[in-house]
Amino acid sequence: MTGKELRIVGRRVRKVDGIELVTGQAKFTADMKLPGMLYGFARRAGQPAGKLEGVKKDEALKIPGVVDVLTAEDLPGPNLIGVLPPFDQPVLATGDIRYAGESVAFVVAETREAAKRGAAALDVRITEVPPILTVDEALGDGARKIHENGNITFSRKLIKGDADKALAEAPVVVENTYETSFQDHAYLEPETDLAVPGGDGRITVYASCQSPFHLRGLIAANLSVPAGRVKVVQSNTGGSFGGKDDVAVEIGILAAAAALRTGRPVLVAHERGESMVGSNLRHASRITITTGATKEGKIVARKIKIILDGGAYASESPFVVMKALIHAAGPYLIPHVFVESTAVYTNKTYAGAFRGFGVPQVTFASESQMDELAAKLGMNPLTLRKINALRPGDATATGQVFKQSVGLLQAIEILEKERLPEKPEDPSDRYLYGTGHSCMLQGISNGAEGVDVVGATVQVSQDGSALVGLGLTELGQGSRTVYAQIAAEELGIPLETVTVRQVDTDSVHDSGPTVASRSTTVGGMAVLKAAREVKESLLDMAALMLQTDKKEIYFQDGFAILSKNPDARIPLREVATAAYWTGHPLMHLAFSKAPEAKYDHDTHQGSIYIAYNFGAHRMSIRIDRWTGEVRVLEHLAAHDVGKVINPVGLEGQVEGGSLIGYGYAHMEKIEESRGIIRNANFADYAVPSIKDRIPTRTLVVEEANPTGPYGAKGVGEPPVAATAACFANAVSDALGVRFTRLPVTRQDILRALQSGAATHGGDKNG
Amino acid sequence: MTGKELRIVGRRVRKVDGIELVTGQAKFTADMKLPGMLYGFARRAGQPAGKLEGVKKDEALKIPGVVDVLTAEDLPGPNLIGVLPPFDQPVLATGDIRYAGESVAFVVAETREAAKRGAAALDVRITEVPPILTVDEALGDGARKIHENGNITFSRKLIKGDADKALAEAPVVVENTYETSFQDHAYLEPETDLAVPGGDGRITVYASCQSPFHLRGLIAANLSVPAGRVKVVQSNTGGSFGGKDDVAVEIGILAAAAALRTGRPVLVAHERGESMVGSNLRHASRITITTGATKEGKIVARKIKIILDGGAYASESPFVVMKALIHAAGPYLIPHVFVESTAVYTNKTYAGAFRGFGVPQVTFASESQMDELAAKLGMNPLTLRKINALRPGDATATGQVFKQSVGLLQAIEILEKERLPEKPEDPSDRYLYGTGHSCMLQGISNGAEGVDVVGATVQVSQDGSALVGLGLTELGQGSRTVYAQIAAEELGIPLETVTVRQVDTDSVHDSGPTVASRSTTVGGMAVLKAAREVKESLLDMAALMLQTDKKEIYFQDGFAILSKNPDARIPLREVATAAYWTGHPLMHLAFSKAPEAKYDHDTHQGSIYIAYNFGAHRMSIRIDRWTGEVRVLEHLAAHDVGKVINPVGLEGQVEGGSLIGYGYAHMEKIEESRGIIRNANFADYAVPSIKDRIPTRTLVVEEANPTGPYGAKGVGEPPVAATAACFANAVSDALGVRFTRLPVTRQDILRALQSGAATHGGDKNG
Repeated sequence: MTGKELRIVGRRVRKVDGIELVTGQAKFTADMKLPGMLYGFARRAGQPAGKLEGVKKDEALKIPGVVDVLTAEDLPGPNLIGVLPPFDQPVLATGDIRYAGESVAFVVAETREAAKRGAAALDVRITEVPPILTVDEALGDGARKIHENGNITFSRKLIKGDADKALAEAPVVVENTYETSFQDHAYLEPETDLAVPGGDGRITVYASCQSPFHLRGLIAANLSVPAGRVKVVQSNTGGSFGGKDDVAVEIGILAAAAALRTGRPVLVAHERGESMVGSNLRHASRITITTGATKEGKIVARKIKIILDGGAYASESPFVVMKALIHAAGPYLIPHVFVESTAVYTNKTYAGAFRGFGVPQVTFASESQMDELAAKLGMNPLTLRKINALRPGDATATGQVFKQSVGLLQAIEILEKERLPEKPEDPSDRYLYGTGHSCMLQGISNGAEGVDVVGATVQVSQDGSALVGLGLTELGQGSRTVYAQIAAEELGIPLETVTVRQVDTDSVHDSGPTVASRSTTVGGMAVLKAAREVKESLLDMAALMLQTDKKEIYFQDGFAILSKNPDARIPLREVATAAYWTGHPLMHLAFSKAPEAKYDHDTHQGSIYIAYNFGAHRMSIRIDRWTGEVRVLEHLAAHDVGKVINPVGLEGQVEGGSLIGYGYAHMEKIEESRGIIRNANFADYAVPSIKDRIPTRTLVVEEANPTGPYGAKGVGEPPVAATAACFANAVSDALGVRFTRLPVTRQDILRALQSGAATHGGDKNG
Repeated sequence: MTGKELRIVGRRVRKVDGIELVTGQAKFTADMKLPGMLYGFARRAGQPAGKLEGVKKDEALKIPGVVDVLTAEDLPGPNLIGVLPPFDQPVLATGDIRYAGESVAFVVAETREAAKRGAAALDVRITEVPPILTVDEALGDGARKIHENGNITFSRKLIKGDADKALAEAPVVVENTYETSFQDHAYLEPETDLAVPGGDGRITVYASCQSPFHLRGLIAANLSVPAGRVKVVQSNTGGSFGGKDDVAVEIGILAAAAALRTGRPVLVAHERGESMVGSNLRHASRITITTGATKEGKIVARKIKIILDGGAYASESPFVVMKALIHAAGPYLIPHVFVESTAVYTNKTYAGAFRGFGVPQVTFASESQMDELAAKLGMNPLTLRKINALRPGDATATGQVFKQSVGLLQAIEILEKERLPEKPEDPSDRYLYGTGHSCMLQGISNGAEGVDVVGATVQVSQDGSALVGLGLTELGQGSRTVYAQIAAEELGIPLETVTVRQVDTDSVHDSGPTVASRSTTVGGMAVLKAAREVKESLLDMAALMLQTDKKEIYFQDGFAILSKNPDARIPLREVATAAYWTGHPLMHLAFSKAPEAKYDHDTHQGSIYIAYNFGAHRMSIRIDRWTGEVRVLEHLAAHDVGKVINPVGLEGQVEGGSLIGYGYAHMEKIEESRGIIRNANFADYAVPSIKDRIPTRTLVVEEANPTGPYGAKGVGEPPVAATAACFANAVSDALGVRFTRLPVTRQDILRALQSGAATHGGDKNG
C-alpha cells in the first residue's frame, strides 16, 4: 500500500452533474427570470444578398411592449465579430447583406411576443443583388466579390515529397470526387444569452456558449469598455459541438448593448429556426482524391483537392481549412502527399466549427477511396488499411513522427478479432447486408491552429473538500467528471468531495476555446498540475503533523497516511485546517501548455499536434430493399485514447459522436433554395432521435500519450468522422454501388435500388 | 524618463466604485429580487435567559403565505457558528437561551409580512431563568454558568519586566478606573443574505458580509455538504466595521437551509431592530490603570486590568481580549508593564469585532490617565507624551522593536506646529473651551491573532485592461481603489482600465477576514506581487517585439516603452494580445504572507504585528454652558501611515473612523433594562448623522513600512480610538473634571455643570 496505483482515474463513475441534468434541476440560461427582464429578438435580412438601404424604427416602437430598437449605429464599438482574423462579420448589418439570416436590427420588449411583433413591424429596405450560391459561381471569373478581398476565405497547401511524379509512376491509381452537405449542430438547447447590468459599472452575461473568453473580449470591444468590465458566466449548456461561438458572441453583444441602454436585463433565446439559419453550419465540401499504390497495396502517393463552402463569413473557416488539409491523407504512411484546401465565400449561412472540424469530410472521401482501391486491388479493405496504417516511428502526412501513442494497428486488430454479426434467415430475400470499415486520425489540441494553454485552479477548503475551476467549458461531454476524477486522484479524496464549477471569465485564465478534443488532454493536465501544487502544501503540513518526511506520506480516501505504517493517519480535513492556519496556500493556479506546433507554413511539414487519436470502425448494416430503410446491426468503434479516465464518459462520447456521424452520413440535409434554408425546423430537418440510436460498442486501445494526464488523449471528435465514413462504405458494400455524396439517405438508397445502379439487390427490388 | 517614479500610487483619485454608489446604481443584497423568492424572518427568544422547552409550528404554518418553519432539529449539521473556537453559539437555540436576541425558529414565507406574522404566531415555550447582566454577577462566587466551562470567555496576561516593583518605587503614581459602553456598528445597510439554490448541486449565497469564507465554511458545515458546494458572493456592502461576520453567517445558514428545503431563493434582510439586538456589539469594558513615573515625566511602569463584557457568546472576544491586552499600555516606551485582559459572558447581546477591536477602550483609559499624570506632574500633556513616545529602536509593551516606521514623534510634532484655533469674543460668557490630545498605536495585520495570508489574482486581457480579484472585502473603506491603483501602477496602465471585482469564494484563496487594518498592507502586497508576475510575461513579450532585453523596457500610460528611446513604444494591448497567442500566462495568483507573530503565550513578549500605525490627535471644542452642547472647532488627526496610496481614500478613512470615535465618545449608548435593549432604533440610539460631522483634518506622516506596498500601513481602525480619547480629554479640559466613563453625553456634561462637579464654568451656569 503506497497509494501509487490509480483508484479513481479509470473507474466507471457517474457524471458528476448527471443527476441535476436528468432530473431537470439544472437551470439553463432561458430558465433564468429576472425582475424587469426584457426579451430581445433580431430582425433578419430574409434574402441572401443585397444592400441595406435603411431601417425605420417608428412602427416597431409603437408596438405595445417594445422598449428599444437597435441598429448598427447604436452599437458603441466597431460592430464586428469573429473568432479569428479577418473579423469580417458585423453584429448588425450596415451595408452589404451577405446571407439571409443576417441580423439587421434588434428589438427589445417586455415579452418575447412583443419583440417579435416589433421586429416584424420594422421598415427594412434592402436592394436585392443576385446571390452567389455555389462555390463554382463564387470562384468563377469576374464573380461579384462577396467581401472586399474576393471570394476565397482561406487556402493552404500541404506538400510532402512529389505526389505528381509518384502518381505518374504508380502501378495502380484510383481517382474520384466526393461531396458532403452542410450539417446543423442540432443541440437540444438553442443559443441563449442573458445580459445583466451589474450596478457596479460591470455587466454580466450568462451564456450558453463554448468559449466564454471570446464573448468577453468581443462584447467589451463592441461596447467600447475594458474587458475587465464584462463578466461572462457559462451557464449549463445543452450541447454546442462547435456551434455556440460566433452566434453566442453576436447575441451576447446585442443583449449587453441593449441592457446597458435600458439598464435592464435582456434575454435572447433563439428559437430553432433562428438557430438553423443564423448560426454556423458544418462546411459543405467537394473533395477530389487521387491515390497511387503498388500492386501489393502499398500507397505511394495521394493528391487531394478540397473546396469548402464557408458561406457568408469566415468564422472558423481558416481552422477548418487547415484541419481538412492536415488530415486529408488519412492515418497512413504515404511518402508523397499533396493537398490543397480552400474555403470559399457564398451567400449562404456561414460555416464554422463543428465537432470534427473538417475531418469528417476528408475522412469520408479518403476512406471511400480506400475501399475503391481495395476493390481495384482485389484486396480485403481492412487488410489494405493495415498494410498502410501509421505505426510508431512513421511520418504522418506532415512529416511528424510519434514514437509512441500510435495505436491504429491495435485498433484494427481488435476489429479483426470481432466476428461479424450473423445474418438471420431471410426467406423473403427482403434484406441486403453490408459491412463497412473506416480508419481515421484526429489531431488532439489546437496544434497548428494556435497556442494551446489552459489555466486551472484547485482550491482545498478547511474541510478537505476541493473546488476545481478552469477555462474550458462543460458542454455535455463529461469533462467536469474527468476533472473531478483527476483532482480526487491526486489529492486522495473521495470523488464526492470534489466540485468542478461553472466557468466564468473573472476567475480563470483565458484558456481558449473548448475545441479540438483538448479538454481531457490539455485541460486535464492543468488540473493535475494545480492539484499537485496544493498537495505539496498539504504534504508539508502532514509531514509536520506526522513528524516525518513528506516522502513518507501518501493521501488516500481522505486521509494522510504514513507509508510504513498505514494505521498512522490523519483526516485530510485536519491537515487542511492546520495548513490554512499556518499559512500554507491551499489554492493554486496552474497552466498546462501544450508543446508548440512547429512547421513550414508553405508545405505544412513539421510538428502539428501533440498527439493523434487513432480510430478504426466497423459497421454492419441491413437494408430493406422494399423501403430503403437501414438498420445498423453492429457498430464497433475502436479508438486509441491513450488512457481511459472514465469509461462511462468515454462511451458517452463515442456513442454521441457516432450518432452525429450517423446523422451526417444518412439523415441530415439542409434544404436550400435561392439562398433560403427551407427546412429550418426539426420536422423537416431529420436529426437522429433516440429511436435512431445505433448499437455502438466502444473498444479501447490505450497507448499512453506522454503529453496527457496519465497518458490520456481526447476522444470528443474522432467518432464522428469514422462513423460517417464506415456507414458510407457499409451501404456501398450492401448495394454494390459507390456513393460519393453525403448524406446517403433512405431516398438515395431507394433511388439506387430502383434505378438499377445498385448491383446487389437492385434487380430483386419490387 | 525611466518609468520609476510613482504615477498613480499617491495620486488623489476618485473611488473607483464611487459613481455607482452615490447615484444609486449599485445594487445591494436586498435589492435583488428573484422569481419565487421567499423571505425569512427569525423568531427571537425575547428574554435574556431561560430554557427552551419547545416550539410548536402549527399556528405559524396556518398563516397565509408561510411556506416553512425551521427549528434547530431541521438543520442537517452541527447547529453551531462562531468565527473562532470555542464555536459556542447555536444557529437556532436548542436548550439554553443566553440572550434576548437569540433566534429560536426561522419562518419563510411568500412575503416579509407573512414571515413576521408567522414568527409571531409560533408557540415558543421558554422557562425563565434569572439573567446575569453584569460582569460582577458573572464573576461572582457561585454564579450560574452561562456556558458549560463557566463565565470567563477568554483571559490573557502581558508581562514585561516587574510592574509591581517598579510601581512601588515610582516617585509619582496615578491610578483610576475607566468604563466604556457597548456600541452598535450602525452601518447604513443592516445585515442581509440571499441564498439561491443553483440547480447544479451547489448553492450561492449573496451576502452583505465581511468574511465570505467564514460564511462558506460554516454554511457548508451546517448543511453537511463539502465546502466546494457553497459559493458565497459578497454583494455591495453598506458598511460593516467588524459587524457583518457572525450574524451574516447565522442568517446565511438559515437562508441556505431554507433554500435547500424549499428549492427556492430565500432572502433574510434584517430590520434595524434585529440588527441591534441580534448581532454583535463593541465590548463594554472596565479598565483599571496604575501608572508610575519619574518626576521628570518618564513613565516607568503600568499595571492594567481589563474586564470586557462579551455578552452571551464568544464571537471574537478572544481577539478583542488580545488586542486590548497588547495595546493597553499605549504607544510609549515603558520598561515595566503588566496587563490582564479578560472577557466575560453575560446574558446580553454578544460582543465581537468592531473597528478598533478593543483598542478604543484601552486608548480612552490610557490617554485619560496620561492627562491625569500630566496634571499631577504639572506638565503639558503633549510634552509628557513626547517624552515617552516610542521611537525607532524602542521596545513596545510586548518587547517588539521596530527599526523604522515608528512615526509617532513626527505626528506629535506636526500637532505642535499647528496653532490652536482662536477663541472668538464671547461677551455673554456662554461658552467653555477645551483642547484634548491623544496618542495611540494600532497593530496592523492579524499579528498574534493568527496567520495573515492574502491571495490575489491579476488578469490582463488581450485589450491590455486588468482585472483584479482578492479575498478581502470592500466594505466602503476604499480598498478597491487602492488595489486598482497598485495594479495600474505596476502594469503602467490607466487606472480606468483596471477593474477590481467582487469577492466570491470560488475564485480566490481564503484570505481570512477583512479586519485589522490589513487590506492595504497585506492585501495590497498580494496585488502588487500578482501584478508583477503578469508584468513579467508582458515584459518577455515586449522584449521579443522590441527586440531588446526586457530590462530596457518600462510600461507607462498603456505602452511598452524602450528606455533609451521613449519614441519606440508599443501599445500594451498589442503586447497582451501577442502574449496571449504565444502562451505567456496573463493571470497570476499571488500570495502575500505577513511575517508570522512569534511570542511567548504566557507573557505576550515577542513579535506580534508586522507594523503599527501611530497616531496623535488634537481636538478643540466649545461647550455651551446653557445647553451642554458640544461643538468641535477643530480636529487634527496625524497618523504615520507609511505611505499614502490614495489621499482621498485616506482622508475618508480618517474622517469616517473619527466620526465613529466621536459617536462612541459622545453620543451612542445602548439602553438596556433587565437584559432587553430598549433603544434598538435610530430614533432612540443616537448615532452621528451628517449634521454631527466633525471638522477632522488629516495630517500625514510617511515613515515607510518595509512589509507594506510602497511602504504603506493601514489606517482603517486607528482614528476611532484616538478621536474618542482626545474628545474625552477635551471635555475634561473644558470642564475641569475628569470623565472616566464613555460616552460623555450632552446630558453628562449638563449634569456635571449643574452639579458643580465641573470646576470650570459650572458656577457660571444658569
